[in-house]
Amino acid sequence: MTQKVSPLAPKGFPTLPLVGGVRFSTAAAGIKYTNRTDVMLAELAPGTAIAGVFTTSATRSSNVLDCQAKLGGDPSAGAAIIVNSGNSNAFTGKAGDGSVEAICGATATALGVPPNRVFTSSTGVIGERLPHERITDKISVLAETLAGDAIHDAAQAIMTTDTFAKGAGTSLTIGGKTVNIAGIAKGSGMIAPDMATMLVYIFTDAQIAQTDLQSLLSAHTGPTFNSITVDSDTSTSDTLLLAATGASGVDVTGNAAFSTALFDVMQDLAHQVVRDGEGATKFIEVRVTGAATGSDAKKVALAIANSPLVKTAVAGEDPNWGRVVMAVGKSGAQADRDTLTIRFGSILVAENGWVAESYTEEAGAAYMKGDHIVIHADLGLSNGQSTVWTCDLTHDYISINADYRS
Amino acid sequence: MTQKVSPLAPKGFPTLPLVGGVRFSTAAAGIKYTNRTDVMLAELAPGTAIAGVFTTSATRSSNVLDCQAKLGGDPSAGAAIIVNSGNSNAFTGKAGDGSVEAICGATATALGVPPNRVFTSSTGVIGERLPHERITDKISVLAETLAGDAIHDAAQAIMTTDTFAKGAGTSLTIGGKTVNIAGIAKGSGMIAPDMATMLVYIFTDAQIAQTDLQSLLSAHTGPTFNSITVDSDTSTSDTLLLAATGASGVDVTGNAAFSTALFDVMQDLAHQVVRDGEGATKFIEVRVTGAATGSDAKKVALAIANSPLVKTAVAGEDPNWGRVVMAVGKSGAQADRDTLTIRFGSILVAENGWVAESYTEEAGAAYMKGDHIVIHADLGLSNGQSTVWTCDLTHDYISINADYRS
Repeated sequence: MTQKVSPLAPKGFPTLPLVGGVRFSTAAAGIKYTNRTDVMLAELAPGTAIAGVFTTSATRSSNVLDCQAKLGGDPSAGAAIIVNSGNSNAFTGKAGDGSVEAICGATATALGVPPNRVFTSSTGVIGERLPHERITDKISVLAETLAGDAIHDAAQAIMTTDTFAKGAGTSLTIGGKTVNIAGIAKGSGMIAPDMATMLVYIFTDAQIAQTDLQSLLSAHTGPTFNSITVDSDTSTSDTLLLAATGASGVDVTGNAAFSTALFDVMQDLAHQVVRDGEGATKFIEVRVTGAATGSDAKKVALAIANSPLVKTAVAGEDPNWGRVVMAVGKSGAQADRDTLTIRFGSILVAENGWVAESYTEEAGAAYMKGDHIVIHADLGLSNGQSTVWTCDLTHDYISINADYRS
Repeated sequence: MTQKVSPLAPKGFPTLPLVGGVRFSTAAAGIKYTNRTDVMLAELAPGTAIAGVFTTSATRSSNVLDCQAKLGGDPSAGAAIIVNSGNSNAFTGKAGDGSVEAICGATATALGVPPNRVFTSSTGVIGERLPHERITDKISVLAETLAGDAIHDAAQAIMTTDTFAKGAGTSLTIGGKTVNIAGIAKGSGMIAPDMATMLVYIFTDAQIAQTDLQSLLSAHTGPTFNSITVDSDTSTSDTLLLAATGASGVDVTGNAAFSTALFDVMQDLAHQVVRDGEGATKFIEVRVTGAATGSDAKKVALAIANSPLVKTAVAGEDPNWGRVVMAVGKSGAQADRDTLTIRFGSILVAENGWVAESYTEEAGAAYMKGDHIVIHADLGLSNGQSTVWTCDLTHDYISINADYRS
């Protein structure tokens, strides 16, 4: 299946800052794909702290279970992250555990790091044995070709149904010194809150203890990666790793500027995942305000964002606000027909339990022709709010997913 | 938009038994549709007990709120049900309440029943004022043309995006006398548990007190209408009314045969709604067994049945059991990779945390070519079980819903 690049893709892969203490390499191991790279290795300098957030799936992969067990290990001897695309190694029984062990062992030997500091991810089809020997056969060449400026290659090697490589980064000055952050992501279908088919790796040369790094990452995941949804499905493999090498020599513990910069990189990557939603032609931002609680607001936002009827209406450029009302109603959150206000962008659509007097179908239809649609529901009850991002549901989503394995 | 009849439709509308004490009429009021009927009236004899189950949406329509308030009224003076298609009268503010009052008032006057014994439903587009005067203008002709054998016409008048009229019924002999049950339904998209875009009217000439009738109806709704899902969306209008006229003279209080017959009619209608799911080409039965609890089983069954990735795989005749594993994992129910067993029909697909040794992709692919697909997940934990029904997700679903209003 040949796929065109998503119409919502950024113009190109960004120029990312070099992050001290990280080197990348990639290889074409032929796990499933041909004529492309499908393995990436990231080597992390001694002293690197690693934080992670993972899928909550009860059927998560061996790789995820292994990564979760390894967080918080001794950073003194360095670390590595090795990722393959084409096969998720999920639901592959005991053999899956063996594949993880084999890959970690070979990587540890080649780089001279302890096996319990090697983190792996696998992404692709579920339930087929991972031919891990194709990966371990490539470890020595991967170890020999490591380079600090190869993050774009790394982003390409982890793509599956992605139509573009995803990267984001920034540099900031703290106490006269530069701190760099650069991240890559993959993910398009099967994206839902609580970490869906997403792999995200973010690197920084900031200096920070693992527990503080984990707190930052966990706090920022809710409003970024856990606020995007493509099809409400949740994968078995989702992994977000954040590595801080300390190479900048700048301690960022408690630094608000660093926290904000990290948040921005995470949000940028999260939005890129949505922009590559399978078949997407519209980027949809769902804002909910005035809810009884923050949790109610998120319930409503997700009900709107996951509604197939809302998503197909947006695909059809139909300002069908009745479906937004329907989604608010079904969410399970406290809501009142007569205090609900709905806006499309800045256009007031409905209020006081009915269509707004000033609203015209023409204005709504014109707004829907854009490719960044903001649906704003104010429940008029209290101060709970939440924003989530999704994309429309199109014929191409069906085409991509009805014959993914063929 | 011209729609072909669903490939999953029954061969034709069934021959339904006449139910004593009920007469039907229909009219073409031109509410939205042209060249077809769009209002149906059912007149119910004095003494008729009426039970109901309704949408739980927080934005439910004026009609639903009105019906809920009227259950349990005095049956001695008779009753009526009047339903229109083309406009849902939902989210139409105070005007919506006025429309219900106008329709109930006119119907009550024409039939000589109290206004608080007139039940109304409206189905169709949300948020546009119901031109109720087009309905009230037809009340006298509706009252003059009532007939006991017009239930098929009634089923046709309440259709919206339905591609076939839905009816089911049965007769049974109790104490040497015949008791009849006949029901009609409409609903295709926006069908989800807890009563989605579904209107269902079931009539029987059995004799039973309102509270007993309500208990029966409520008990049977869980495993029938609340176990079907088309797109996980929930409508603002769903209404299930059951009217018992008593005309047979047979008291069915506590009668198991009557209860079973009613259950079968409800299940038949529920399945017909799924078979008319927008764009459906496959009827999917999801059976979950071995769950920790019944509620966990239903969670898993709904996670599978509502997964866009599972539904598109079935549409593509792809035995992609990995997506079933994914859905089990995301459901939130207790599950264990290594005790999970998956079957497609009688084909053992996966067990012990991996694909079954006996499974072949050819056997799975051949099974998927059928139009009644059974997905069976046994969690291997305890005795909780649940069955839900859904349909596949196809290009036609997108086509129907991307331009429903145009």
